[in-house]
Amino acid sequence: MAAIKVIGVPTSTCTQRVLVVLIEKGAEYVIQPLDMMNGAHKKPEHLAIQPFGQIPVIVDGTFTLFESRGIVRYLADKYEGQGPSLYGKTLHEKALVEQWLAVEIAITAAVVQLVLGPKFRGIPTDEAIVYSSLEKLEKVLDVYEAHLAKSKFLAGDFLSIADLVQLPFLFLLVEVAKRGEVVTSRKHVHKWYETISSLPSWKKVLSLYAWVLLT
Amino acid sequence: MAAIKVIGVPTSTCTQRVLVVLIEKGAEYVIQPLDMMNGAHKKPEHLAIQPFGQIPVIVDGTFTLFESRGIVRYLADKYEGQGPSLYGKTLHEKALVEQWLAVEIAITAAVVQLVLGPKFRGIPTDEAIVYSSLEKLEKVLDVYEAHLAKSKFLAGDFLSIADLVQLPFLFLLVEVAKRGEVVTSRKHVHKWYETISSLPSWKKVLSLYAWVLLT
Repeated sequence: MAAIKVIGVPTSTCTQRVLVVLIEKGAEYVIQPLDMMNGAHKKPEHLAIQPFGQIPVIVDGTFTLFESRGIVRYLADKYEGQGPSLYGKTLHEKALVEQWLAVEIAITAAVVQLVLGPKFRGIPTDEAIVYSSLEKLEKVLDVYEAHLAKSKFLAGDFLSIADLVQLPFLFLLVEVAKRGEVVTSRKHVHKWYETISSLPSWKKVLSLYAWVLLT
Repeated sequence: MAAIKVIGVPTSTCTQRVLVVLIEKGAEYVIQPLDMMNGAHKKPEHLAIQPFGQIPVIVDGTFTLFESRGIVRYLADKYEGQGPSLYGKTLHEKALVEQWLAVEIAITAAVVQLVLGPKFRGIPTDEAIVYSSLEKLEKVLDVYEAHLAKSKFLAGDFLSIADLVQLPFLFLLVEVAKRGEVVTSRKHVHKWYETISSLPSWKKVLSLYAWVLLT
């Protein structure tokens, strides 16, 4: 199979989400960096394949696809027989992967407020937003805690895309925004985070990320 | 096959999302209303199957599932051979369904601000939020417009869950919040909305909704 081309940058959380799944699957891929500092994502060539002017986009032969959460599902389907079954093996397992992927959307909105606003975009910290985001996040993590007491991963006893898609933002939350206590104060959430953030696939994504920061 | 039990209320947009897919598929279902006015969704029996205290939940034999966007995918998979192929027929078609489902998440956040806040929850209208939500929505609808000029539905020339999940909020936007001009001013978006909102499945959901309002 020809390598999948990932148009993106390894410092982007959405690109990382795609990369960790590609690596976990042992799929061949190449990264085609986009010069976003010079607005390459808003130029006609890119808008022709990503009309919102965002990253990542994958190119698989003549097929192009955008939206990281759509891409990871495509990769889980395409490489169903290769590497771990990241979408589960049965109709019910897949449904539970989807259930927790939907929950992830809610958690990520709160994490974005906690991490991306103040740290990366220079937006003045709005304490009311930080407080309500933290409150939302804590409520979701309380549900995770009760659930992960009975289940090794979110969708069951198997690693899935529902776990992997959360790594980029959880990493920022714990390692960059120094909000790690929301994770480490919950025994089972902490163990789950330790498990997924120790995966060789995620270490590899981080090494790509570090490489970019050094150049 | 035994009927699928939908725990929810037909006035809830998330419940409607599930119902329109069940009806489109010609699946057997029963609705088990939840007395949310009296806090039934926060009681232990409900929290045992929906830890966030929300609706809808489906019960299919011994299998329970929550999160409307997870449920519609499960139904599309489970009834793959019955009714229209709402997930597409190929790996690439399914990937495009997922791509546009991911875009829907972005659009819905803006629509919620425009519709649910001021109209239903009595939240004072914050003009800055309304303005920025409208701006976001218009940008997404501009992309829809260009895309739907070439494609009958979002994921291609076939109806999919990516179209159907948008009906509840688009209906509120057009019919309740009277923001219809964002839809009708765009020729292809308008035609697409006319097509999906005229589906007998959606008319049926509305009839359930009206019935509840009258009782």
